[in-house]
Amino acid sequence: MRDIPKSHPRYKSLLLRERVVEGVERGVVALQGLIAHGRGEAFYYLLGERSHPFAIRATEVALALMLTAKHPVISVNGNTAVLAPELLIRLAVEMDIPLEVNLFYDRERRERKVWNYLMQVSKSLNLEPRILIASESPAFIPELESWRRLVHSEGIYKADVVLVPLEDGDRTEALVKMGKKVIAIDLNPLSRTARAATVTIVDELSQVIKNMLSILPSLRNLPESSLYEKIRSYSNAQTLREAISAIRENLELEASKLGLT
Amino acid sequence: MRDIPKSHPRYKSLLLRERVVEGVERGVVALQGLIAHGRGEAFYYLLGERSHPFAIRATEVALALMLTAKHPVISVNGNTAVLAPELLIRLAVEMDIPLEVNLFYDRERRERKVWNYLMQVSKSLNLEPRILIASESPAFIPELESWRRLVHSEGIYKADVVLVPLEDGDRTEALVKMGKKVIAIDLNPLSRTARAATVTIVDELSQVIKNMLSILPSLRNLPESSLYEKIRSYSNAQTLREAISAIRENLELEASKLGLT
Repeated sequence: MRDIPKSHPRYKSLLLRERVVEGVERGVVALQGLIAHGRGEAFYYLLGERSHPFAIRATEVALALMLTAKHPVISVNGNTAVLAPELLIRLAVEMDIPLEVNLFYDRERRERKVWNYLMQVSKSLNLEPRILIASESPAFIPELESWRRLVHSEGIYKADVVLVPLEDGDRTEALVKMGKKVIAIDLNPLSRTARAATVTIVDELSQVIKNMLSILPSLRNLPESSLYEKIRSYSNAQTLREAISAIRENLELEASKLGLT
Repeated sequence: MRDIPKSHPRYKSLLLRERVVEGVERGVVALQGLIAHGRGEAFYYLLGERSHPFAIRATEVALALMLTAKHPVISVNGNTAVLAPELLIRLAVEMDIPLEVNLFYDRERRERKVWNYLMQVSKSLNLEPRILIASESPAFIPELESWRRLVHSEGIYKADVVLVPLEDGDRTEALVKMGKKVIAIDLNPLSRTARAATVTIVDELSQVIKNMLSILPSLRNLPESSLYEKIRSYSNAQTLREAISAIRENLELEASKLGLT
């Protein structure tokens, strides 16, 4: 498995899978993170493993929110760190947005390892993103049990816009209740996270960050009023509807390719 | 996570998830097995987490194949062992079918651990199933690379009917080419395994074995000609079509519950 030929039809998917397995061996990814990755794989497969128009539109609106925010923050967990470290660091530096290492499972054991990993990648890129660790200046999200409440006082706690790739439903709902705009990256359009977020990008994480980096220059050239207009006219329910339709259509397409309809 | 309240709407799914995580800690489940479990979770969720009529029908035909076989064998990998150890042991004893420990990843390190685990559970049940270990009497499946070719000479190699829960596509295809009837348990009706198998049960593994144990007595009362008739009239393509339709309908249902249609 460690040497996947580039010609393999599912090369990218297998490569991402290897990254999370290596992330566990490195102590950065939790075992539960592997199961979550598997769930994502299934939905990505059902979406045809590509960026649909509804995902590109949501990505644009997410960037518009991040560009017009006072205190945007990007939350990073173990899976996020290993799936797209270079892209995330480039985006953070390019947009001058801090990364916050904020873990769900096994926080104490992994937090410093995730931070070290991001620092090491940053060094190899010769970039210096600001990387916060939630527990080093703790503040608390109301209405959650203790172990998931903790956020950085100068990071997510203070943020008006938070990009939370691969977040769970409870936390997403709690952050929205605090009045924050939450951007989720979630391949399951039916999940609580997908439904609770302000903007849900139903696409694979590394692809989303890649898309953000390529869309960013054109959005920067727009007047601020156009960015606000993009945000105002966006409907997340519409995104989720289109994502569900895409899965249904893709199932039908795959079935007919296999002679199963 | 270790104490999941029984009232939780996704209690069973969370319990199964815990079992595979514990399986890794025990050295029985490979890291790749966690990702595979996550993929299965996603498809089970999309199927509404229940046994559909097409799955019950396939389960009956699978039992008919096993009851009329000369040398049936049940293949067991790490995930299978931890997801339904007691049920598999009961079924093996009840039907007098050997279990064959046959692993995909990391065979040498885990093989004996999976065997030990099954022996330990058998002892606690006061049952004595026959449990083979593939590498202790190796024979080889033609047309596969070395590391996945190995099967037990008196087990899968000799078998006319093989139940392979959670098997990969290449091996399923190779076993079918050898002229064996292959029964797969696979939650993804589009997978190569699902398409290559003689009978594909699109349902959750532990539920399938539970269903087998409860259907078995009534099938045993049937004349052999009725079992052959069940086998003859079965269409696996029809099962897969119905499974794909079930996912599509369930997506629509879930979306409408959420006000997304």
